[in-house]
Amino acid sequence: MSTADLGLPVDVPSTALFTDRYELTMLQAALRSGAAHRHSVFETFTRRLPAGRRYGVVAGTGRVLDAVENFRFDGPVLDFLSNESVVDDTTLRWLADYRFTGDIWGYPEGEVYFPGSPILRVEGSFAEAVMLETVVLSILNHDSAIAAAASRMAVAAGDRPLMEMGARRTHELAAVAASRAAYVGGFRSSSNLAAGFRYGLPTIGTSAHAFTLVHDSERDAFTAQVESLGSGTTLLVDTYDVATAVRTAVEVAGPELGSVRIDSGDLLLLAHRVRQQLDDLGATRTRIVVTSDLDEYAIASLAAAPVDAYGVGTSLVVGSGHPTCSMVYKLVARGASDAPDAPLVPVAKKALGGKTSVGGRKWAARRLDREGVAEAEVIGSGPVPPDLVDRQLLVPLIRAGEVLAREPLDTARTRHITARAALPLSATQLSQGEPVLPVEML
Amino acid sequence: MSTADLGLPVDVPSTALFTDRYELTMLQAALRSGAAHRHSVFETFTRRLPAGRRYGVVAGTGRVLDAVENFRFDGPVLDFLSNESVVDDTTLRWLADYRFTGDIWGYPEGEVYFPGSPILRVEGSFAEAVMLETVVLSILNHDSAIAAAASRMAVAAGDRPLMEMGARRTHELAAVAASRAAYVGGFRSSSNLAAGFRYGLPTIGTSAHAFTLVHDSERDAFTAQVESLGSGTTLLVDTYDVATAVRTAVEVAGPELGSVRIDSGDLLLLAHRVRQQLDDLGATRTRIVVTSDLDEYAIASLAAAPVDAYGVGTSLVVGSGHPTCSMVYKLVARGASDAPDAPLVPVAKKALGGKTSVGGRKWAARRLDREGVAEAEVIGSGPVPPDLVDRQLLVPLIRAGEVLAREPLDTARTRHITARAALPLSATQLSQGEPVLPVEML
Repeated sequence: MSTADLGLPVDVPSTALFTDRYELTMLQAALRSGAAHRHSVFETFTRRLPAGRRYGVVAGTGRVLDAVENFRFDGPVLDFLSNESVVDDTTLRWLADYRFTGDIWGYPEGEVYFPGSPILRVEGSFAEAVMLETVVLSILNHDSAIAAAASRMAVAAGDRPLMEMGARRTHELAAVAASRAAYVGGFRSSSNLAAGFRYGLPTIGTSAHAFTLVHDSERDAFTAQVESLGSGTTLLVDTYDVATAVRTAVEVAGPELGSVRIDSGDLLLLAHRVRQQLDDLGATRTRIVVTSDLDEYAIASLAAAPVDAYGVGTSLVVGSGHPTCSMVYKLVARGASDAPDAPLVPVAKKALGGKTSVGGRKWAARRLDREGVAEAEVIGSGPVPPDLVDRQLLVPLIRAGEVLAREPLDTARTRHITARAALPLSATQLSQGEPVLPVEML
Repeated sequence: MSTADLGLPVDVPSTALFTDRYELTMLQAALRSGAAHRHSVFETFTRRLPAGRRYGVVAGTGRVLDAVENFRFDGPVLDFLSNESVVDDTTLRWLADYRFTGDIWGYPEGEVYFPGSPILRVEGSFAEAVMLETVVLSILNHDSAIAAAASRMAVAAGDRPLMEMGARRTHELAAVAASRAAYVGGFRSSSNLAAGFRYGLPTIGTSAHAFTLVHDSERDAFTAQVESLGSGTTLLVDTYDVATAVRTAVEVAGPELGSVRIDSGDLLLLAHRVRQQLDDLGATRTRIVVTSDLDEYAIASLAAAPVDAYGVGTSLVVGSGHPTCSMVYKLVARGASDAPDAPLVPVAKKALGGKTSVGGRKWAARRLDREGVAEAEVIGSGPVPPDLVDRQLLVPLIRAGEVLAREPLDTARTRHITARAALPLSATQLSQGEPVLPVEML
């Protein structure tokens, strides 16, 4: 079966081409100079959180492992690189054998991070490590942005479930990754069938205005839905008049009606009115689901309203105003010479316009106070202070090319809840502020 | 070869699962009620442009055609839907035979649009048309957002080439679509190899700070690059001291050095200094490429600087502040009864909280003044006024399920330049303002 037969809207046969051209031309030049074989340490970090955010959320790590494992230059890819004269024949031969054989350490998925946190460390020859830059950053920058927004929404929603419904607002495959990242950040389910298929996420759905409009009356539509999907279904009640729709809904489904959805208007006011009406009709266990351009602030503003679940679309998949993180992938140390056992020397670009990097292979740890509350993100490249040895954040993800750290998505989701709970209380304020932990560079 | 073998980070075997679950449960209920077979007209439009934007840019149409053609429910997908009890067996059998057999009309790719412009009209049975909602919106909302940002940057850049370099800032496959949309909006090339592979876009690249840092000196790095890639290459000159680097670059490559890239600092100041230095060194034809968080405003501010090309990353792939459009897919007309020849009746949700829709199958035309400048977007559902017949915007894209309107990407790119040029002059002001054309609903 050719890739085109799959019907995917993009038929790139591996992850190897999710790569900026310069990675491969640098490889070619470094193969020639010999620097390609120098042992190199790259670190992924951000210099700043999005304005006002208190913490970042690592997401996409599991997808990074998949991408590294599938970073292969096969026939069609090599033919393309050759036909386009991207690199020379020596380099093509090198690429044909490419497998990442180095080590990757990182913050585990769901962990929180701060400016400078080395959330992923890739170590190997310059040649094998530099090439992973683009795809590693694509995944972490996207997925972490979504997870950070999801986490804020989860804080605002408290115990009420959040449903991800943003597929239609972002690229069709970004949407699948967004569902996954939202789950890590605290969402409960997704409308996106591909996310269910690919990641086993629970999928949910209600119905659209079109379903009501295609029938001759709202009653016909509700009857069709209840007959087909059962009285536990969710009926959409704002196509015409909400009060009429709620009355019709309970008449059609009975008081065991599962839920009603409100998708427009003043949600606070409508939720109260609809709750009262449902209770008056005896549908006291019918739940109220609200949707309609919700973000963490709108969710918080509904905390006192009788709402049972939130459906969130646009603001989630665009990271609630911050659709990308500013993570970079920087060479921080390399062999002092081309000899394979050469000692590592730290390297860094000179600061110009705020683009500072700190050289050296780093460890990171989170220091807790006596009550067990995090008080600082401590990052260093020397020996780890004894009191921080057990609080280190980086874990081995890939060793000598072997993936070590696959885990169920629920593990990452639970880890995020735990990590966030250990932050100072102000972490979960929605208002703009500084990162909730200071970063100490040792 | 299984989809997993492809190494794609997502292995959804067709476009059919890029779909919200409710599309399929609505289908099930409509199959039972009979409404599934009613002839239906869905229109895609936006109620508003992003705040301050003067026009929108249609992009992704070619990808929509691919997605519709590959919207198929094959074995693994049907098994998933069955195992998860998404829909019943009757519905699964219907899905197994699914092929879109209706008609799609739309604004051609690259055309500009305004609030209410019916940029895509999908017509067929309710069942076959409703299911395309999610994937159609994903593609158009994403790609049009990128193209709109690209178009503004292209206006700001004038005749200077724009290079797309945003892969690392967005989802790895969204990045490929973003490269494509940027090209439609006026970019010249992309760093993204997958975009070259998939869409034949010209790919370009320079080198990274890591390449300089992995060598023992900047001179070693420049020598390696020039020996491997030729003196026409682009040398990155801001790793340590820019003036030193420029001198070294010309010493190593000679005055025929292709380009230097500046990626940090005060680009306006540095461009002037570097130009002067290059000229003094006899490298009068060496070009200056600037990168570093450029957006349309930064590009405009460099108009008077001696810059030869711009590389744009983050701000492009996040739509320069507007990463999605607010396009919706609404049922606007349907058969008056279940009879196949029933006349169409317009339908619309009642306005609540600004979510207005206008019922009826619509045409759209752009009225020009005597000088040939566009003066209004005219939209109606009745007969087309004679003077607007030749100015209609919707073209047939799919007829009876057959794709009619494949075209090279350059056609869309050229169309956009032509369409934008016919707008009033204020269209290309970067400052915030109202949509440049009024919309008249007839």
